[in-house]
Order: sequence, then C-alpha cells, then structure tokens
Amino acid sequence: MQYSIGIDIGGTNSVIGIVDKLGNIMFESKLATTNFPRIEEFVEASYQLLLPQILKLGIHEFKGIGIGAPNGNYYQGTIEFAPNLNWGEIIPLAKLFKEKFNLETTVTNDANAAAIGEMMYGAAKGMNDFIMVTLGTGVGSGFVANGKMIYGHDGFAGELGHVIAVRDGRLCGCGRKGCLETYTSATGIVRTAHEFLQLKTIESPLRNIEKITSKDIYEAAVIGDEVALAIFDFTGKILGQSLADVIAITSPEAIILFGGLAQAGKFIFEPTHKYMEENLLKIYQGKVKLLSSELKESDAAILGAASLIWKSDKG
Amino acid sequence: MQYSIGIDIGGTNSVIGIVDKLGNIMFESKLATTNFPRIEEFVEASYQLLLPQILKLGIHEFKGIGIGAPNGNYYQGTIEFAPNLNWGEIIPLAKLFKEKFNLETTVTNDANAAAIGEMMYGAAKGMNDFIMVTLGTGVGSGFVANGKMIYGHDGFAGELGHVIAVRDGRLCGCGRKGCLETYTSATGIVRTAHEFLQLKTIESPLRNIEKITSKDIYEAAVIGDEVALAIFDFTGKILGQSLADVIAITSPEAIILFGGLAQAGKFIFEPTHKYMEENLLKIYQGKVKLLSSELKESDAAILGAASLIWKSDKG
Repeated sequence: MQYSIGIDIGGTNSVIGIVDKLGNIMFESKLATTNFPRIEEFVEASYQLLLPQILKLGIHEFKGIGIGAPNGNYYQGTIEFAPNLNWGEIIPLAKLFKEKFNLETTVTNDANAAAIGEMMYGAAKGMNDFIMVTLGTGVGSGFVANGKMIYGHDGFAGELGHVIAVRDGRLCGCGRKGCLETYTSATGIVRTAHEFLQLKTIESPLRNIEKITSKDIYEAAVIGDEVALAIFDFTGKILGQSLADVIAITSPEAIILFGGLAQAGKFIFEPTHKYMEENLLKIYQGKVKLLSSELKESDAAILGAASLIWKSDKG
Repeated sequence: MQYSIGIDIGGTNSVIGIVDKLGNIMFESKLATTNFPRIEEFVEASYQLLLPQILKLGIHEFKGIGIGAPNGNYYQGTIEFAPNLNWGEIIPLAKLFKEKFNLETTVTNDANAAAIGEMMYGAAKGMNDFIMVTLGTGVGSGFVANGKMIYGHDGFAGELGHVIAVRDGRLCGCGRKGCLETYTSATGIVRTAHEFLQLKTIESPLRNIEKITSKDIYEAAVIGDEVALAIFDFTGKILGQSLADVIAITSPEAIILFGGLAQAGKFIFEPTHKYMEENLLKIYQGKVKLLSSELKESDAAILGAASLIWKSDKG
C-alpha cells in the first residue's frame, strides 16, 4: 500500500494527516497556524508531529506531500498574497517541505484540493467534468474538465467566488463590488439577513439574536420562519444564476456543493436548483446534477490535500 | 504529407476545402446551404465537389473529415436543434459523411473549430490555456484548458454568447434576457446604435442611414463620430466585464477575438481591454493577452474544421 501526507493550511488552524491510497486516514492532527510566526517553524512543527507517527505506523513508502492552502499556486508550489497568512507575500511552500521531508510536494488552493478529493473518494468518483463549489467563510471552487483540474495559465484558475454576481453590488474584501462570495458564503448570507430584517417588518426569531450566524438562519428556517426562508431563497437565486452562467462555459456532469452553507441541505439546495434550471440555456436544462459532497467535513481537507499526490502525476 | 477535409457549415453558405497538415489550403469552394433541403443531398453535393479535386491533386492519404457547424456535438457527431438549419432536429452528420467518404469524421461547433485552427496555425500556437471568442452574427466561444478543448459532459460547452451579461437585459433569440450576444455581436452593436441614437441628441452620420450595419458604425468611428465611439465604448465595456468573469474561471494565457466585430480593431480592442482589466480580480491583472486572430477570415473556417482531425486523436 502507498501512503501520502495531506496538509490543509488555514488562517487559524491547519490539519495534517497520513492517508493511504484507498482514502483511509491513518493519522490526523491539528496545528494552530497562528502559533508559528515563520513558515520555517511551521514546517519544523509538521515534521516533529509526523515523524513519530510514521515510525509507529511502520510506513516506508510515501508517494509525497499534498498541501491545500489559500492562494496556493500549483505550478509554483507557492502561497501568494494570502490575506489571512502572515508568512510573507510569496511563500515557497513546496520547496521548504521537500527539503525537510525529502518528498515530492504539491500545492494548490483548498477548493481545488477538495475537488480532487471528491473525484478520488467522493461524489465525483468517475466523473471527468464537474465543478466543486465550497460555501464557507468565502466561496471557493475547483473546475475539472476532461478529467483534469483546470489550473489555468498561472495556476490560479477557478475563482468562482469572485465572479460578479450582482453588478455594482455588495463591497467585497477583494476591493471590487458584487462578487458571488458577498452573497453566498456563510458571511454573505448573514449580510442578507441584516438587509432582510431591515426591509421586512414581519416577526422573526432572528430579531432576538445579537450576532446572527449562518447557523442561526438555518435553525430559524427549520422552524419555518418566513424571513429565514426568504433569505435562503434569495441566496439560492444568486447562486443558481451564477451556476447557470458557468454551466454555459464548462457544461459539467455535476456541481458539488460543500462547506458550511451546503449543510443547510434542502434550504439551500432547493432554491439553488430551481433558479439554476430557470436560468439555464435550453440545451443544458435538466442535465446537470446538483450534489452534496460525500466527504465528511472533518476529513475532506486531509483527503483532498493527500489526493493531490495521486493525481499530480497524471499529466 | 497528410491531408484532411475541412467543412464549415453555415445557415446560408458552407465552405469546403482540402488542407495539408501545415495549414496550406489546396482547394476551397462554397456551397449554398439553402439549396439542399435534405442533408443527404448536401453530403452528395460535397462528394461530387471534392472527388474530382482529390483525383486532380493526386492525394491518396486522407486523415479524415472535420466539420464545424452551429450546435455541432463533438461526442455524438451530430448537429442538434440548430435554429438556422432545416435538416431536422438531430442531424447524424458524422455518420452520413463517414458512410459516403469512408473517412473518420469529427464534428464540433464553429467556434470550437476556430479555436483549434488558431491553436494549430494562428495566434494560439503553443498555448495550452486560451479562450477563442467569435464576434459574428452571434457570439461563439471555444475554451481550451490543459491543451485540450473543453467539450463538457454533453459536448456543448463554451456558450459564452449566452452568459448573462446584463441581468434582465435585452431579449435574446434563445428566449432569455441579457445574453452577451445581444450586446457584443454584429447584430447586438446595431441594437446599441439604435438605443444610443434615440437617447443622445448630438449629430451623427449614423442618423442618415436607413438600415445601420456594424460596418457603418465602424466607418463612423473612423471619422471620429462621437456616437459611434460611445457605441464601441459601451460594447467593449459589456464584453470586458464578461471576459473578466470567465478569466476567473479558466485563467487563460490569452483571449483571441475573431469575426466581424473584431475587425473593428482598436475601436473594439481598446475599450474591451480597458474594462476587462478594470474588472479583473487583482491576481489576474496585467496577465491575460487580448489578441486578434491570426487567421484570415476567409481561411479560418476551413482551417479550423480541418484541424479537428489532427487534434481529435489527442485524447
């Protein structure tokens, strides 16, 4: 059996694990990213964490290290200008890990890693053309066509979260206006809640909450709150419209939704699917599956990152 | 030397030619598409047209037939529901040509064929990631990623002309509203001209033309007409905004503009490039070339269609 190391780097926490080729997670542990002011310290800590486990498991054959990270560049093996990491503008991640572990290291952004994980072990198994959409704090995506991840000319392809969903719409952290993620991320839906509570006069349990989260909106929807249902309908409309547009580009077999907001189940899937179909060009109608990720949220990051290694020698 | 047959089927005219692998057109001729009420008659006429030429040129080795056609389906070898062809809903084009000529036949839509032609012989030579945009009567496109055409799961990928450029905008022939091609095709820019002439009160040579064409708008721009320049600025703005969105999906090395409207040169390229850059996410700024096709308009259809054969055995 072959093994690989999967690392998911986040602004707050990072997850590190050892995975076999069948997708079994042999070991998994967390590091607080912010504890390491320098990237070299993070690499060293990862090494100290993994070494005893590798000895304990008696593994001799590692295929390599796969890393999912915000603004991860597949071609360069770097993290570039990631807003939530303080390790410098351009971080030579693959080089540092390769030197420390003496293992081939591949880097990409977290949504691409999730897409590859889904293709190897999840809802996209056997698919050559699909789109992975992660609805978390932001909105990320990975586009797969002809069985291969689209990295683009510069390694930064697949920023669905920054497609303009509403021209001159909400201000985005990227400095532009109306990006999809200002509407359909966990933070975007909270912005919608505040807007709707101001615009509408009807009663809602959301009015009694001081600091509304996306989970509060979900819980209100579960008990039939009209405002919460309208918030999900609006969110699904914006998402469905944008999905209809990108379907016209890559015509995928399926779109897979993943992340916090996707866990709202029918409350987000039903309006998204309805508005997606309503906005599709006729030749695409009724063809594209809207699926939920089949990977456990807690495992997906590790599996996705580790899977990079099995897929990186494809082409 | 190997040869292939290239056929470009249009609603009014079709072009048929013989091309060698270096891109030299050995023979080229037109057929009036509307002269043939049945597809079988069109296939027979193509055969009668080509046979004497093949004998005359003394060619013994044909790699196959490549056909570019509206709504051409690469996987099925069919034309499906093409609004401007009267040969039935689903036309088994590849099958009919293969039977008649005893040659492998590949079909795709005209914009994909143009993209492959550009990749083999034109502005995209050596590129693995680019987007071809055809600005003709409609707007077509071909997306190439990882060196391969994106056909999508159903063979119909790449309908950039039907991405929604303006939500609830102009009515499109497809039945929806605000499609890119209602603004940035040769017919779209004429719609803009009529709108602008009504809205603005200043003088313009366009006011004296009974039936304005995109060429009239170009000619007015050449002599510095303010209304014509405003029309091009608006068209470039809509196109640039949509290009910025698709760059966030596939992050191409270049976007190649082709077709009638692209021949307006700087009048369309300058505003398109300006608004594209203004609307790009920071990581893509200054990276993506906006290029003019390097194929002669008259040759491109044939070269593109014929190239399908050299590229179809890639994957």
